[in-house]
Amino acid sequence: MKQNYSIGVDLGGTNIKFGIANEKGKISKKIVLPTKAEKGQESVISQILKGINSILDKSKDEIKGIGIGAPGTVISAKGTVEHPPNFPDWGKVHLGKIVSKKTNLSVQVENDANAAAIGELIYGAGKKLNDFLMVTLGTGVGGGIIFNKQLYRGSHGAAGEIGHISINHNGRKCKCGSRGCVETYIGNKYLISNVKKQLLRHRDSLIYKMIEGNNSLLSPKLISEAAEQHDDFAISIIVNAGQSLGYGISSVINVLDITNVIIGGGVAGFGEILFRSIESTIQRRVMKPFRDKIKILPAGLKNEAGIKGAAALVFYKS
Amino acid sequence: MKQNYSIGVDLGGTNIKFGIANEKGKISKKIVLPTKAEKGQESVISQILKGINSILDKSKDEIKGIGIGAPGTVISAKGTVEHPPNFPDWGKVHLGKIVSKKTNLSVQVENDANAAAIGELIYGAGKKLNDFLMVTLGTGVGGGIIFNKQLYRGSHGAAGEIGHISINHNGRKCKCGSRGCVETYIGNKYLISNVKKQLLRHRDSLIYKMIEGNNSLLSPKLISEAAEQHDDFAISIIVNAGQSLGYGISSVINVLDITNVIIGGGVAGFGEILFRSIESTIQRRVMKPFRDKIKILPAGLKNEAGIKGAAALVFYKS
Repeated sequence: MKQNYSIGVDLGGTNIKFGIANEKGKISKKIVLPTKAEKGQESVISQILKGINSILDKSKDEIKGIGIGAPGTVISAKGTVEHPPNFPDWGKVHLGKIVSKKTNLSVQVENDANAAAIGELIYGAGKKLNDFLMVTLGTGVGGGIIFNKQLYRGSHGAAGEIGHISINHNGRKCKCGSRGCVETYIGNKYLISNVKKQLLRHRDSLIYKMIEGNNSLLSPKLISEAAEQHDDFAISIIVNAGQSLGYGISSVINVLDITNVIIGGGVAGFGEILFRSIESTIQRRVMKPFRDKIKILPAGLKNEAGIKGAAALVFYKS
Repeated sequence: MKQNYSIGVDLGGTNIKFGIANEKGKISKKIVLPTKAEKGQESVISQILKGINSILDKSKDEIKGIGIGAPGTVISAKGTVEHPPNFPDWGKVHLGKIVSKKTNLSVQVENDANAAAIGELIYGAGKKLNDFLMVTLGTGVGGGIIFNKQLYRGSHGAAGEIGHISINHNGRKCKCGSRGCVETYIGNKYLISNVKKQLLRHRDSLIYKMIEGNNSLLSPKLISEAAEQHDDFAISIIVNAGQSLGYGISSVINVLDITNVIIGGGVAGFGEILFRSIESTIQRRVMKPFRDKIKILPAGLKNEAGIKGAAALVFYKS
């Protein structure tokens, strides 16, 4: 029987999302369970298995395998997940082996940013590209490198940390230990905390009115809405975010000579303004021979990108 | 008959260096001719052929081929050299084909920084490494990426521009069009011009005494000599240069997950002080999982590195 389906598991800090995908990335069933990360690794693993079992309504014969996108350091050859941020008491877990043993299915585990890159390669904006950089914008800024239609993993399986290109060696301290990393400008938490600092100097802005003194309402979505209503401060936040990311990506392009860039994740919802800012920054900053080759593309996988990326791991041939 | 020898041609802006190398990188004959770049491409090509012919004292049967390391954009698959800086009236030249036709030998052409990387891989500090970053310090700052014992060329053959990682998006304007590139801190010309600017604030330094008011005497070598005599200003120049390079390399390591770095070229003559500064900076700035894996090595090829790198192209299997 032809095994046309895969199960995608998107392991997040708060929720785990599960879905069954076909070879074209169509999700036919989807469920969400709480991660219960605070209860420790046993509990998380049990939630993962619970989700997989409850979604296994297809005959197992049609399921080619399970793909898991996980935060933290993932050694995909071994299926191990180490020290995911916000997972206390986790250490190093042989997640691939454990899930494979309990389900009798083959399991591919991959870092979530790499899974996003493979998702775009198999299902999304990278289907017709040989080489591209994937950038995922969220709480952190992740990255994946596709070269010759293959994920580039580096010497120890940890390549692609585009969020930790420093664009200012004297910049803000990053949680990675360095300073001025791209993530300290455009990662959700840093971005919002930067906006808070500037807000008092922008009392005439729509953002100031919208949050009515309640800073906790600040979010990328709210900034987006203000920008759509032509609020200058909101627009400047998004333009600056695009510039910061553009500076970092320009350096990566100079080193890697990969000129296609796919951008996905929440903050990518900043839309046209963000993309134009990224592109014009790169056009100014990248070395001349690359300029007419630059393509900045929004991710093809929007909703359920996490599940689809994970499911794509099963259909990816390395 | 076993073809144990290759001819290496190191095409520079001022001189062309030629040598015959065996498989172990021993140079058995060496000559130097002026490039005559100002007289145009015909003249440069004629100098290249002249040099090769006058060095061809070995029986051609023993010569496996010719390797040429060239500045500018080199498409090695086609053997073309485009727009080398300081070569007026050059455009795009099919150097590989021309030299091959005139000599009846196979010819490999490579960008000079990539040739340096292959030289280290075949003959030098990279012989036992699978993966390393090569950084060449000179007028410019060049780079080459070796992964799985192969040169990584990128999508268009132009990868490896480690000198054009920006470490400060508001930094000094770089000739590439960007700002704050590593090259604007540690490339010879920029480095010396930065030192000139600071010199008047350091009249008590040995450097100030050594040049006796003649700024044109400033050179990396002179700074080295002052540092060897424990001059604080000279030491701070070298430490700062190492930090700037370290910031840039840290970003590259985070993206590529390649943790061996080989550093060669003139400014690498700054020696221990430079290497210690680079290493301690990277240890502070690179992401934690990489820290215990970092190796910063001086290039194995010192004298005649250019000839040896070019000669190594012939023995490199891609």
